[in-house]
Parts: sequence; C-alpha cells; structure tokens
Amino acid sequence: MKLSQLGELALLEHLKKSFEKKSKKILVGIGDDSAVLKPIQKNLLVTTDMMVEGIHFDQRFITPYQLGFKLISINVSDIYAMGGNPLYVLLNIAASKNVDTDVIEQFLDGVEDALHRYNTILIGGDLSAIHDGMVLGATILGYTDRHISRSGASVGDKLYVTGCLGDSACGLELLKRVKKPVPLETISKEQRAKSRELRNKRRVSISSVRRMLLQMGLSWDIVEPLLRRHLMPEARNPKKIRVATSMIDVSDGLLIDLSRICDESRVGALIYREKIPVSPELKQVASCLGLSPLKLVFSGGEDYELLFTAPPQKRVRAIHIGEIVKRGRFIIDRSGGKKTFSPKGYQHFS
Amino acid sequence: MKLSQLGELALLEHLKKSFEKKSKKILVGIGDDSAVLKPIQKNLLVTTDMMVEGIHFDQRFITPYQLGFKLISINVSDIYAMGGNPLYVLLNIAASKNVDTDVIEQFLDGVEDALHRYNTILIGGDLSAIHDGMVLGATILGYTDRHISRSGASVGDKLYVTGCLGDSACGLELLKRVKKPVPLETISKEQRAKSRELRNKRRVSISSVRRMLLQMGLSWDIVEPLLRRHLMPEARNPKKIRVATSMIDVSDGLLIDLSRICDESRVGALIYREKIPVSPELKQVASCLGLSPLKLVFSGGEDYELLFTAPPQKRVRAIHIGEIVKRGRFIIDRSGGKKTFSPKGYQHFS
Repeated sequence: MKLSQLGELALLEHLKKSFEKKSKKILVGIGDDSAVLKPIQKNLLVTTDMMVEGIHFDQRFITPYQLGFKLISINVSDIYAMGGNPLYVLLNIAASKNVDTDVIEQFLDGVEDALHRYNTILIGGDLSAIHDGMVLGATILGYTDRHISRSGASVGDKLYVTGCLGDSACGLELLKRVKKPVPLETISKEQRAKSRELRNKRRVSISSVRRMLLQMGLSWDIVEPLLRRHLMPEARNPKKIRVATSMIDVSDGLLIDLSRICDESRVGALIYREKIPVSPELKQVASCLGLSPLKLVFSGGEDYELLFTAPPQKRVRAIHIGEIVKRGRFIIDRSGGKKTFSPKGYQHFS
Repeated sequence: MKLSQLGELALLEHLKKSFEKKSKKILVGIGDDSAVLKPIQKNLLVTTDMMVEGIHFDQRFITPYQLGFKLISINVSDIYAMGGNPLYVLLNIAASKNVDTDVIEQFLDGVEDALHRYNTILIGGDLSAIHDGMVLGATILGYTDRHISRSGASVGDKLYVTGCLGDSACGLELLKRVKKPVPLETISKEQRAKSRELRNKRRVSISSVRRMLLQMGLSWDIVEPLLRRHLMPEARNPKKIRVATSMIDVSDGLLIDLSRICDESRVGALIYREKIPVSPELKQVASCLGLSPLKLVFSGGEDYELLFTAPPQKRVRAIHIGEIVKRGRFIIDRSGGKKTFSPKGYQHFS
C-alpha cells in the first residue's frame, strides 16, 4: 500500500496508537496543536537534527529501520554531548505519497527501538508530503543539573575520547562498494546472539553480502562492527564522565569537532597520533580497500563518540588522546614530530 | 553569491551573530550541541511544523521574506492554540547549495521580524544541503499555567472563531492567477503606512501586480488583505479568551479542524452558516473569480484564526458561530435547514 492510499489522518492515528505512552509528566502528547509537559526543576536542553535523502543517507545502502534508529541516535547524541538526559522526542517526516507504507512502518520500528534504548518518549511532530526524497528530522528535549558546553576547556586540561574513531566512515566506504542495504536490525531488536536460531536467520539474511565481502577478502566478523557503527550508531551516555569541562560528539570528524571546542573555549590543542583509538577492524578493512586509516580517523565523522576535556588531576574513564594548550592545533607523532591541523571534516553546501 | 561559496560554517556564524540574544534564561544559545534553558515554573509547550517547497509553498508566488515570516507565524499559532506564550524557536533549513545567499538572507529577515513580533528568541536549529527544493521547519517552545487542548469541549458550550475565514485560501487563488510574488514586506517591516515615502515605494513595487488586478476588475485595497492573510499570516494571541474549554487554530479548514475538536472531545457540533464571519473582500474577489465563497470559508484553511469553545454563560470577545451538541455535525442555514458535514480540508499524501 502507498502513503496516498493510507492518508495523513490514518498515519497520524497509527502513530498515536503505537507511540502513546502514559506518563504523569506528559499532560498532552501526540495529536494536539502542541505537546504539554509538566515543569521539571532542571535545566532544559533542546536540539534538532535533520537527515536529508541524498545528503545524509542513500536508501540503496540503508534500510528504513536503520534510518529510524539512526535519526534518534544522532539527536540523543547531541543531548548526551551536553551532559544531559534525553526525555522527549518530536518527529518530522516528509515523504512522497508514493512511498510504500511498509517503508514508513519499518522506519517507525527503528524509531521505536531507539526510543526504548534511550528511555525517551515520542510526544509529537509533523507529517508532510514532499515531491522527491525523504526529509527526516527529530527534536529532542532533555534535562540536566549541570550542562557541559563546548566553551569550558582550560589550558592544562587533558583531552579524551570515549571510543574508536573512523569506524563509521570506514563502514560507509564498505557500503559504497557493497551497494546494497545490510540488514543488521534483527540482531539489535532481539538483543544480539540471544539464540542459535536467530544467528542462523542472521546468516541467511546477510549471506549475499557475506559472499561479496569474502570475494574482497573480508570476513563478516571484521566488517559487521564497522557497518553497524555507520548504519545504527549508538549515542554515548556521559554519565560516567561528570568531570568533563567541555564536550562535543564527534559527528563531523575529530579535527573539525576538536576545532569547535578550541574556537569556543579560545584555546589550542594537541593530539598524540599514537594514542587515538583505532579499531583492528578499521585497520584491516582500510588496508584491504586501499584507504588511509588516518584520514578516516581524523576527518571521517559520524562516530558519535564523545570528545571532551577534563582537569589533569581527575580520574577519567575514557581514552586520553591529547592536551589543551594555550594556542595552536597540533598532531604529535610517535617520534615527537609536530604538525599543525586545520578543521577538516564534513561541511554542508560545500 | 551561492550557498556553496559561503559554506555551512560561515552561514552558522552569520546566524549566531544576527540572532544572538542575551537573556538570563538562556544558558547556551545557537551553536553548541544543544541549547540550554533555565527551568520555568510553568507547563512547557512544544510544537514543530515544516514547510516543504512544492507542497506548502511555491517560490514563484511567495518571497523568501514572506516564507520566513510565515514559518514562524504558523508555529507560534500552534502554541497560541494551546493557550500558551511562545518563547524560544529552533530553525531547520534544508537548501540547495546553488541557492543564492540573498534568498537565505531575505528568508532570515522574515524570520527575524516574526520573532520580534511574537517576542520570541532563536536558540538553535539545523542547516543541511538538499538536492532539490527547500524544506523549512521550526520548533517552538512556549509556556502556560493552564493549557487548552482540543478535548475539553462540553455539550452546551458555544463555538467561537476569532476572525474571518477563507481569506487565505482566496488569497492563494488570486496568487495562482497573478503568478508572481507580491512584495508586502516593506509595509510590515516599517509598520504599515508610517510615512508617505513608504507608501510611494509600495506603489512602485506592486505596480505591475496592481495593473494585472485592475484588468481583472479588482483594486489593490480589496486584494491586499487576502494576499497578506495567505503570504504573511499573523497568529492570534488567545490572551483575551482565557475562558476557552477547547481550542484549535484553523490551519487545514473550518470543517476538518472543528471535526478534530469533536473527535477529541467526543461531542457533536452545529455551525450557523450565516454567523460565520466572511470578509467583504473575499465576497468580492470570489465573485470576480467565479469561486464559491462557502467552499473557501468551510475548507480553505491557513487562516490561523482560533476556533474554540466556551461555556454559554461566559462573556467572550470573539464571534459566536455555533454550539456543541451531543452528537452529529451540522451546518444550519438561514431558514433553519440542517445539513451534515464531514471533515473536508487539507490532508497530506492524498
């Protein structure tokens, strides 16, 4: 069935039924002119991010489920990057009336699973027709007692990252070669490897992709984490890093996002090249595809790891990759060689 | 200059500079991962609405300034329709890299004037490239002590509307014939007819449209309010109608929006056809263009007048057009004849 046969009102009814969640804090949820929420005695965080077809995603490489999951993850990541707790979500969907309702259904499944993972509730949004290409958006409200902005880094602070960088960009390069969607969702949905049966199903559903990868000399175990990092990224919860003085999520690339911290905090930074966490999977796939691992790591983007600074005396549960200095932006190699860097990474309209 | 020459970072810088507004309530504004706001001891209202090129607007008929103004108005209207006060705005812009920066500049002028009119502050948003057609969106946060939902109408309540209906749809019909943008913004920007000089300018800028209208037998004074209602609608502040039991803004059409109140309140309604306010301008233009005034009034949409119910004993400063009854949905004509109505109005995907 096409969206044109279903109609806006029926889709809205479906959304109300599927996502209606009772909570004493929600006075009015989906379906009125606006949502109404009881006041919370904490600072309110608000963020919004779009995903535009042909720019942020290509439906030949990503399933509707993954799109829904990723849309929520990237928005939650912005709340986490401020040290906040996400709570409420508004969803914007602009889709052609010729889109199959199954696509919307699967997209909403991905949204629902992500909402559940991040303990958030859908409270509203907007639906619209569009002539070509889907445009998706989410707005997330969160709360915090103490926010962590980009502007709090001080000279002497150490620089940390919560996990490996470059995996997502490497996953995208793989997808560009595989040229088809890779179903990962059954795994996440049922919680990975819960039963042998599920593993068998998984083998079946990805068998053609696996064959293609084998021809490229790559095994599924190596590529799966990279594809997953790109197709279904998980936002990093900052609850164990309360000591951060400044923070950002790595969405556009390490160098551009670190530059944002430097700009806003009016400081310089140096990164120890050897300390940046790089996954063995990235190393192997980059070598196989003839890609520069360093380029992926420095300007790949979309990893959604948290990049933050903390005072040197504090114990921090993350990977130490550099220091905040008075001025200049440098990458230090193993032998101590210094190279300046500029904010390379993803920029719209360019 | 094209957006591709300016780039995302420069546009973001421009936004930060133009819209940065200091307020003790805003801890972090435009440019971080999310905005941060101090808590307010009132219920929080959140709404989001998109405007998609080719669906909600046609750049052949509307100027970028008007687009910006309208985007804010339609979102503010949703906050007003809940009995709330709008306060903070997030802006989403997806535009082609080939769009002229002047278009964006004028769009932002319209946004700025509307923000000012409604006493609201831009605190964030998202920018993205898109291959074809602009997609615009806004999210507005507002506050209220007592919200007015669609579900509070009771049998015996009277039905009211804040102003004339159908003008916007009639304005759109005019634009489809004029087939060019009509500059109205200088009037609003400088506050209409403030000086003779301005009026002279206005005459010049709309002279070609005026000639075209004269050929159709229509004078500028007659068409201007209709065009304005469509191109630069103003949201209706509900502060003088605190007694409302249920409320909605007429965005998709009287019959569809009244049906929403009936559905949510589980009641019926009757409308006195003769009591619905219809402007003399609409009557004259509809007659000249051979359009049915009743069709424009009942299912035109985009007027952004408030439609609400209130207890019969309360004094209300609005136009009484009907009653809430137990069941059924009827239009009553002058002679008392009863006709049932169905929710006719704009629906996406159909």
